[in-house]
Amino acid sequence: MRHPNRRWILTRGVALGVALIAHPRRAAAQASPASVGPANPALLDDLVAANRILVDQGVLDGYGHVSVRHDRDASRYLMSRSIAPELVTVADIMEYDLDSNAVDPRGRTSYLERFIHGEIYKARPDVKAVLHSHSPSVIPFGATGVPLRPLYHMSAFLWVGVPVWDIRTASGESTDMLVRNPALGRSLAQTLGARPVALMRGHGNVVVGDSLPQVVFRGVYTEVNAKLQGQAMALSANVSYLDPEEAKKAEASIAGTLGRPWELWKRKVSTK
Amino acid sequence: MRHPNRRWILTRGVALGVALIAHPRRAAAQASPASVGPANPALLDDLVAANRILVDQGVLDGYGHVSVRHDRDASRYLMSRSIAPELVTVADIMEYDLDSNAVDPRGRTSYLERFIHGEIYKARPDVKAVLHSHSPSVIPFGATGVPLRPLYHMSAFLWVGVPVWDIRTASGESTDMLVRNPALGRSLAQTLGARPVALMRGHGNVVVGDSLPQVVFRGVYTEVNAKLQGQAMALSANVSYLDPEEAKKAEASIAGTLGRPWELWKRKVSTK
Amino acid sequence: MRHPNRRWILTRGVALGVALIAHPRRAAAQASPASVGPANPALLDDLVAANRILVDQGVLDGYGHVSVRHDRDASRYLMSRSIAPELVTVADIMEYDLDSNAVDPRGRTSYLERFIHGEIYKARPDVKAVLHSHSPSVIPFGATGVPLRPLYHMSAFLWVGVPVWDIRTASGESTDMLVRNPALGRSLAQTLGARPVALMRGHGNVVVGDSLPQVVFRGVYTEVNAKLQGQAMALSANVSYLDPEEAKKAEASIAGTLGRPWELWKRKVSTK
Amino acid sequence: MRHPNRRWILTRGVALGVALIAHPRRAAAQASPASVGPANPALLDDLVAANRILVDQGVLDGYGHVSVRHDRDASRYLMSRSIAPELVTVADIMEYDLDSNAVDPRGRTSYLERFIHGEIYKARPDVKAVLHSHSPSVIPFGATGVPLRPLYHMSAFLWVGVPVWDIRTASGESTDMLVRNPALGRSLAQTLGARPVALMRGHGNVVVGDSLPQVVFRGVYTEVNAKLQGQAMALSANVSYLDPEEAKKAEASIAGTLGRPWELWKRKVSTK
Repeated sequence: MRHPNRRWILTRGVALGVALIAHPRRAAAQASPASVGPANPALLDDLVAANRILVDQGVLDGYGHVSVRHDRDASRYLMSRSIAPELVTVADIMEYDLDSNAVDPRGRTSYLERFIHGEIYKARPDVKAVLHSHSPSVIPFGATGVPLRPLYHMSAFLWVGVPVWDIRTASGESTDMLVRNPALGRSLAQTLGARPVALMRGHGNVVVGDSLPQVVFRGVYTEVNAKLQGQAMALSANVSYLDPEEAKKAEASIAGTLGRPWELWKRKVSTK
Repeated sequence: MRHPNRRWILTRGVALGVALIAHPRRAAAQASPASVGPANPALLDDLVAANRILVDQGVLDGYGHVSVRHDRDASRYLMSRSIAPELVTVADIMEYDLDSNAVDPRGRTSYLERFIHGEIYKARPDVKAVLHSHSPSVIPFGATGVPLRPLYHMSAFLWVGVPVWDIRTASGESTDMLVRNPALGRSLAQTLGARPVALMRGHGNVVVGDSLPQVVFRGVYTEVNAKLQGQAMALSANVSYLDPEEAKKAEASIAGTLGRPWELWKRKVSTK
Repeated sequence: MRHPNRRWILTRGVALGVALIAHPRRAAAQASPASVGPANPALLDDLVAANRILVDQGVLDGYGHVSVRHDRDASRYLMSRSIAPELVTVADIMEYDLDSNAVDPRGRTSYLERFIHGEIYKARPDVKAVLHSHSPSVIPFGATGVPLRPLYHMSAFLWVGVPVWDIRTASGESTDMLVRNPALGRSLAQTLGARPVALMRGHGNVVVGDSLPQVVFRGVYTEVNAKLQGQAMALSANVSYLDPEEAKKAEASIAGTLGRPWELWKRKVSTK
Repeated sequence: MRHPNRRWILTRGVALGVALIAHPRRAAAQASPASVGPANPALLDDLVAANRILVDQGVLDGYGHVSVRHDRDASRYLMSRSIAPELVTVADIMEYDLDSNAVDPRGRTSYLERFIHGEIYKARPDVKAVLHSHSPSVIPFGATGVPLRPLYHMSAFLWVGVPVWDIRTASGESTDMLVRNPALGRSLAQTLGARPVALMRGHGNVVVGDSLPQVVFRGVYTEVNAKLQGQAMALSANVSYLDPEEAKKAEASIAGTLGRPWELWKRKVSTK
């Protein structure tokens, strides 16, 4: 990871002096950073596929974004310019440094909330892919604080708990709900901690993984689990969730099978 | 926007003099008004797209209608003849004055409830597009009076409150539920007030915006919010909605992103 | 309507002597009745369309059937041989007398429950089209006895009440749930009375109309109303339904608009 | 059906000797068994169709599997290699002995949970087809223990009761939730007993039938029944299910009609 340069601190340090987060150390350079070079074309293809799969599976609509860490340099990540995920092609993918500065933007607009991605990549060296979505069945859980828990083995990865991040608490005031600066991104990353999923009250969720297939799998089955958990809670006050030990084991076993849905989902979006 | 011309004011004044009396006959001129000239072709294309998008997104079925104010003259609006919205083409679009008289009808049938549109355009100079729908998830809210409230930032525009208009109260008697005359249209416009959305008990809703992309966006996310709010209320008695300040800010921020879903949605209906 | 012939009474009268229903007067002739002649080709096309529309709109799945009274002779009706409604073509349509005897069956299998149609046509001279479905959202109402009521104007036709027919009560014993003889069909027709819809406990519903467009419209909006009514009841204990007077007026007004969804729905299934 | 050969009985006898002990190693021969010869090509086509139909009808997603007993030898069954069911072709189908050893695997990966199939075929000579799914609407029933019961005649086969198998009880410890060895498969088969369906807590269900059309039919209507039963229970505390006698009769009658949806469903997946 690269450190923020001096110039940014001078120009923006005052404004951030009273900011919400205790140590807003990292921040973005104003000058566009230099590219670390082209990413693996297969990784770019997978990033395009991830965007389309997440729409096809009902996790993303016209909003939300998914990114992947650059395969050549862990201090960079790749994400589409600001368009609807269903329309993303390889030509739309931009390179960002971890302060979420765009490399060679050429007038292309970036997602306002790219700081979600940059700050999580900084905080989580293990994370290779990040998804921010308005996953519909998940919204009611973020709005009620009802804990999302693993109802079946497909969503076993939820066993470590799914925290809810409240931007109002994080910022100490009412915001426009958007993670539009590094400080808010860091706060969200702190709430996420070492977990795979965090909900955002009144907004959506963030999902991370060690690869694009894993982050897509987790995004899809977080949505499915939320839908089915709501149905289970309506049926009975006594819902059995996976116990931590079995969830841990199930998560490990399922991890070995991710290629199966990934190949299916890719094929479905490629023939559209 | 151009100001309504003098003739319109005179006509309208008389019509408004007789409020919600039992049998308000049509106050406007019976003779077909003259056209103010052709609308911008791009606006007509967008109106066709709006019809199809609202079907594609599950807001409209075989019923409902969306209109746009004429770009040349604020005292006119444009809307399809009476057909299912999914079938609307540019050739079906008719011009109406604000008393909802059709210009050059040539035998084409008008929607019975066109007065919803005309009366809102009269009452709301800021409004450039109007949608009337039977948005399915919204119907249960209109029937129960449970307040529709913004569950997440995408539907922040609901923060000002969503009134429920009851045609039985408005007319003082049992009706056929249709807004089939100017007086009922005015009553609905009064209930709507300065807000973006009003529900119609036992019927549907009306949504307004400053453009077709905005009215479509609001129509879609009113439907989504209603669906998710029902789920949230089933999960817990404690649902957190956006607070007014954050909703206001979120609404302003989201307003700057409407082009993203609009381009997506247009492309989806154009390739069908 | 033609009376059952003598021969049938002789051959079957004994078996029916101890049957479930008090006066099993009408019954079917063993010999295949003669045709009253070909039906209007447009009517046959509409019957094929009705089958496909009801699948497309989620009312029918692989089961269920829709029929229409013969345009030449009120004592005959037309219905497909026993195949899934989605696969019905004009060549599959058979002619039946009102005892549900097939004209010229040529080895084609008839729906076991055709007596639903024949007995309703006998009892209701006003009825020109009959639908029997397992309309999914309607099943829970039939199983609980919660009254289906008109939540909005589109389903105003439900205002007269929707009775639930229980085959166990009708037959006085446990059956295989199927309306597999004239007596059960008559019992169902009696429960239906002069109404447009009756539910069948543990089975589905029956819907009638004065035309194919009307029966299709009613089938679709019975399903939609059931779905939305369940949502409304979950939201609040105080649901406002249309009052009888407004429902009556709304039903009459909507009746004048049925061509709009019918044209749309026909076009959708014809381009598939 | 042919009887299991002598060698199978010997092998199986030993394997069954060690029941649900903690670490049941594979009891069957490690060497790949010899083929009993090619299956009927029509049966293979039906197995491919069954996979695709179950996806098309929302019972399977990227996971789950369906198998059929070999038509030449009752001690063998046929199932796809480990890929998503939607992608299965005839070339993917492998032969297994009842210990779930693959015949001529040629490097092809088997489903980890194939023991579900093998052990049920052993325990149930009447069973010719087995489905394991994560049927979504069924998951909440498995997680709550709310009994799945037949709401209507289409799911009358549920009348004998739907037991819930808990892998934690079966194994005496927390597992990875997968039926990854013969002992767990046997335990599941014991819970299933003579019934058509058993739920698996925190996982999914298993469905059996005397043919592929029957197992597909049962898989589809178990899903539909679960969805509708949840809706019925939300509507009212008094839900009428089929009584045992009528369910028994209905099951028998419906059994004679399975060809109708099967032909429809096959046609739908073949034109995709």
